[in-house]
Amino acid sequence: MLEGIQTHVFTLRVRYAETDAQGVVHHANYLTWFEEGRSDFLRQQGCFYSDMERDGFFVVVVQATVDYRAPSFYEDHITIATTLQKGKGRVMEFSYQATNQDGVLVAEGKTLHLVLDANRKLVSIPDKYQQILQKKNL
Amino acid sequence: MLEGIQTHVFTLRVRYAETDAQGVVHHANYLTWFEEGRSDFLRQQGCFYSDMERDGFFVVVVQATVDYRAPSFYEDHITIATTLQKGKGRVMEFSYQATNQDGVLVAEGKTLHLVLDANRKLVSIPDKYQQILQKKNL
Amino acid sequence: MLEGIQTHVFTLRVRYAETDAQGVVHHANYLTWFEEGRSDFLRQQGCFYSDMERDGFFVVVVQATVDYRAPSFYEDHITIATTLQKGKGRVMEFSYQATNQDGVLVAEGKTLHLVLDANRKLVSIPDKYQQILQKKNL
Amino acid sequence: MLEGIQTHVFTLRVRYAETDAQGVVHHANYLTWFEEGRSDFLRQQGCFYSDMERDGFFVVVVQATVDYRAPSFYEDHITIATTLQKGKGRVMEFSYQATNQDGVLVAEGKTLHLVLDANRKLVSIPDKYQQILQKKNL
Repeated sequence: MLEGIQTHVFTLRVRYAETDAQGVVHHANYLTWFEEGRSDFLRQQGCFYSDMERDGFFVVVVQATVDYRAPSFYEDHITIATTLQKGKGRVMEFSYQATNQDGVLVAEGKTLHLVLDANRKLVSIPDKYQQILQKKNL
Repeated sequence: MLEGIQTHVFTLRVRYAETDAQGVVHHANYLTWFEEGRSDFLRQQGCFYSDMERDGFFVVVVQATVDYRAPSFYEDHITIATTLQKGKGRVMEFSYQATNQDGVLVAEGKTLHLVLDANRKLVSIPDKYQQILQKKNL
Repeated sequence: MLEGIQTHVFTLRVRYAETDAQGVVHHANYLTWFEEGRSDFLRQQGCFYSDMERDGFFVVVVQATVDYRAPSFYEDHITIATTLQKGKGRVMEFSYQATNQDGVLVAEGKTLHLVLDANRKLVSIPDKYQQILQKKNL
Repeated sequence: MLEGIQTHVFTLRVRYAETDAQGVVHHANYLTWFEEGRSDFLRQQGCFYSDMERDGFFVVVVQATVDYRAPSFYEDHITIATTLQKGKGRVMEFSYQATNQDGVLVAEGKTLHLVLDANRKLVSIPDKYQQILQKKNL
């Protein structure tokens, strides 16, 4: 089990629609970026979240924290480094660091997740996905 | 049948998240505002779109046009006037005019819709909803 | 000074665009809702954030936390109760509780803010706004 | 001048936040995708829109039309083909075709743009940018 070691890197370019009247990225978008970092992390492990939903499991966010360190601007190249902090039992925890093209840390954060079945009832992370999360990824 | 006559008025206040780096509302948000104008129009007729989905019908957008006339700003009070242009057979058509607190027309537009059943197959507007749409609303 | 006592209530109706493929409100939208709760709180105190920007001051979010308690659905009526926890010196802190039409707490959270001047340099909360924040609001 | 010939291809992966309760991409997002197709088109010509704003010019959208042909889903790979239809005088016109990983056309559209100076006054497309737009791009 390599929780806290697997770090996956995902890049994106800031969209105009993500900026606000302050001329910087609106703070709510970082949660969406973290989500895409997390999705790409899972895809790299062979776990497409869209398959997971087809299997009848829904991963929900139960807590999210973002620390904003520096502004991001339109056309910036942002790298999201996603780290699995915990991925067994009932809880998944991910941490994130978003860095721009100049190596400046623009935001970091953490999300906690639970898994629901098709009836929105809380379940443990299904074995199949628990194994994927615990795979050595290097 | 009073297509083109029923105009419903819905108001909203511009959110900070809706602005972009030009200091004005990002153009994609007008489609979301028109959608809420349309939803509120239907609710006023006694037709909750969430009920419609529970009945197994999905209204999809097949065409949208927006003409942008003037910028909108954070905290502006926007009035969306929604008019049903067509609401029988297979097609629903709505038109919209968005006006700010000073009476300035900021945008107008039009959307065309079709109805799908639970299998995403094209169907006529269900009778129940067709009657609602054709009700005199004054 | 009545920090932590002033609670302001703001209501909104869930938009279709705010839902995601799980059929519930996407988690990033709660930050936008909290922001509108906060904006409306300030407006009630006679402080329009758009005026503040015209005065050359920008309030930035430096930390945000959301605890998601229950899902929200399209057309839900959400009440955001915003409380000023701290509003003097350099830091503004707000807390939020979002409740649906059935009185169910759907999310709560906290945001920390700093004030920048027109050159994006950190300053104390301007006196004028500090007084507004400290007004008894009953 | 090669208006209508220059077609630029840009790809993106559908984000979870872009889906709605119908399980498909919400229709307003296509305008944002077209905008990123257009931005990337301009970047490929050596024209960063962020530079243009630093030069004091703002390109605004005056009309947008979208025809929705098929739904898009989370994790789809979407290709936006952007074509410059007109780029001289006062008006810029772009057309777009969005296709998924199976080659299915999911949407097509058109946007019309005008250029404003720093005082939001209408101007012709600045020479520098007009030349960029008229460069042969093959």
